[in-house]
Amino acid sequence: MGGVSDEVLLARAFLSRVGEPADVPLWRMVRDDGPVATAAALRAGTLRGPDFAATTARAVDADPEADLEAAQRHGMRLVVPEADEWPHFAFAALEACGLRRAAAWSRGLRKRHDRGELVPPLALWVRGVLDLATVGVRSVALVGARAASEYGEWVARDFAARLAEKGFVVVSGGAHGIDTAAHRGALAVGGETLLVSAGGLDRAYPPGNASLFDRVAETGLLVSESPPGADPRRHRFLTRNRIIAALGTGTVVVEASERSGALNTAIHCARLGRPLMAVPGPIGSRQSAGCHRLIRSETDPARLVTSVADVIELVGSAADLPAAPPARTDALAGAADRTQRLDGLESTARRVFDAFPARGWVGPDRLAVASGIAPLAVIRTLPMLELAGLVQSSAAGYRIARRSDGHQRPP
Amino acid sequence: MGGVSDEVLLARAFLSRVGEPADVPLWRMVRDDGPVATAAALRAGTLRGPDFAATTARAVDADPEADLEAAQRHGMRLVVPEADEWPHFAFAALEACGLRRAAAWSRGLRKRHDRGELVPPLALWVRGVLDLATVGVRSVALVGARAASEYGEWVARDFAARLAEKGFVVVSGGAHGIDTAAHRGALAVGGETLLVSAGGLDRAYPPGNASLFDRVAETGLLVSESPPGADPRRHRFLTRNRIIAALGTGTVVVEASERSGALNTAIHCARLGRPLMAVPGPIGSRQSAGCHRLIRSETDPARLVTSVADVIELVGSAADLPAAPPARTDALAGAADRTQRLDGLESTARRVFDAFPARGWVGPDRLAVASGIAPLAVIRTLPMLELAGLVQSSAAGYRIARRSDGHQRPP
Repeated sequence: MGGVSDEVLLARAFLSRVGEPADVPLWRMVRDDGPVATAAALRAGTLRGPDFAATTARAVDADPEADLEAAQRHGMRLVVPEADEWPHFAFAALEACGLRRAAAWSRGLRKRHDRGELVPPLALWVRGVLDLATVGVRSVALVGARAASEYGEWVARDFAARLAEKGFVVVSGGAHGIDTAAHRGALAVGGETLLVSAGGLDRAYPPGNASLFDRVAETGLLVSESPPGADPRRHRFLTRNRIIAALGTGTVVVEASERSGALNTAIHCARLGRPLMAVPGPIGSRQSAGCHRLIRSETDPARLVTSVADVIELVGSAADLPAAPPARTDALAGAADRTQRLDGLESTARRVFDAFPARGWVGPDRLAVASGIAPLAVIRTLPMLELAGLVQSSAAGYRIARRSDGHQRPP
Repeated sequence: MGGVSDEVLLARAFLSRVGEPADVPLWRMVRDDGPVATAAALRAGTLRGPDFAATTARAVDADPEADLEAAQRHGMRLVVPEADEWPHFAFAALEACGLRRAAAWSRGLRKRHDRGELVPPLALWVRGVLDLATVGVRSVALVGARAASEYGEWVARDFAARLAEKGFVVVSGGAHGIDTAAHRGALAVGGETLLVSAGGLDRAYPPGNASLFDRVAETGLLVSESPPGADPRRHRFLTRNRIIAALGTGTVVVEASERSGALNTAIHCARLGRPLMAVPGPIGSRQSAGCHRLIRSETDPARLVTSVADVIELVGSAADLPAAPPARTDALAGAADRTQRLDGLESTARRVFDAFPARGWVGPDRLAVASGIAPLAVIRTLPMLELAGLVQSSAAGYRIARRSDGHQRPP
């Protein structure tokens, strides 16, 4: 599985079973101590405090080997951040949000009920033929109401088919209504589609969509944060929506009532800094009321789109930025290549990079002082520099990437 | 007719016959020299140059007495700026635009083909029971395509009825499609509606709407810049649209194709600084394409509205500003009243007023220097100060209004 050790794979499978999606304290511990040490500590029951009580309780019954075997039986595989297939670019914005939240968490500013949905997943169970790493570079999420109108389903099918024909991966959630129409629209033209499910991939949810799930797996990809057998509980739908927003270069809300879950995906999309779009409809239709509210919104305004050309114009620039994800071996390349990568940086990222000391580890706060850039902007920029192979991170902070040790994280 | 002399009324009737709507040089001359002197000069043929050639040529056949008699036979009356019924507030924004264009004209910056549609009318022929001066204080223009869809006509009827029920005058252009639906919607609930026609009011245009024109006159008002018998020519439709935009506190584009004339009204509305709104529709409908374009526009963006509540929220503040038009006799009131009026001024207007010398005439340029406010902002503000009775204007410029001579313009 892409050069990932069995130890790491088992640890990530275990964490995916015992941790709830988007658990900020757990994500932070895994980031700082690594998956193997975190899994061992949870098994040993040495993590105290309310943040880890429920997770530790679930550790007793966890059997990651059985989960991996069950996954293999169902044609699934586990994709982890240590693997080549991990979609770093898609999750960079989630990671920036996670860093911010983790920083607030460590300063005691966290709220118990605000465990932050915006951290990257610890691992993803997938089934199908698409390479997950290539998604999120040229993709569009189409989301909307389950109780869709004929108009909404027509728009979703039409947009999906045209986007797929243009080479975009159509990302959605596999639910009835808009989601189903979007997946089917892409499949109808032989295009690629990605379905993010809230439950384990061994069974379809909703059950009536079992054949759709199978068809998506044949030419596209099924993705879930939850291990085989996991029920699609309510909070998993909400946390699932951040994965949809992150895997789309932009998100189009095709139809949504005033209380649709699709608005939750839209908010994630806006927070991630991705283009948020909405399709208008007749003012008498309840299913378009949420779209109209988004277009009018003063906090997270959606752009009104009436055609796939509009959508491509808006996601185009975003999709063009990373023409191809930088290989993780970039850091091994020569100085000329590094100069090229530096030239490609936007000015903020360049200033942050220039603020690094020649040797030794440094934290975001010191970089903020040295660069004269706000700490939050520094925190947002660091994952980009890391993905570009220019810096590397550890529990000690960040440092200039060394050619000798490449871009490997400390174990 | 509201204390207006026969001499002025005849002069304005004559000017309305010989001048084309929105003729900037003519409007400027009337403003500077007054209607009687301008009419006399046109009759005498003493105005030279290409700006007045066509107007002078038409003067030979003009018979304002016959026009006024014909108007009376058709139940019409002529409303002039010197009359109490003139809607000063509605036209203040047009006047500000006109002052700007006149300034450019006098500096030789004018273009022959840009004779500026945005000057107030020289007079208005009206038929019906509404007091024109009360319109524009609590009114909404509903405009849209002649080739409207069933959806668009339903929206226009529904919005018009609800707005009329809330006491708003529904302003539109009497054309087929959206306009007709808007007028009928207001009439259906016994509400007030105002129809601005591009041709003379002795005949309806389109002819099939003759009974609609009659019904509007019974409880509302028909308005035209053109005298009886005037054909509704193409350029009159375009200049007519500025009157619709000016008489509405805000304008709602209900349905419009990409090339609809309603978009012309929308641009006028935006330039006048009034709230511009548009109703969304299905993306497959050509009749909504213009609305969607307006909502997305970066230069003159329209606010997306889905209900009359949305409309009232947006025009509400604008409609509330002038609770009642200030009487033109305000300037005769005492110092205490003047202090009250000064307190009611917004800060820009107050700064412009404070920049006036105690005596003598002054131009906008000197006021701009003395107040530190941009010349354009000063020019916009002056008509407001004049309408509030605080300053008075003449060909020599502006000065503080004198209690002794009230608010009379120099003859």
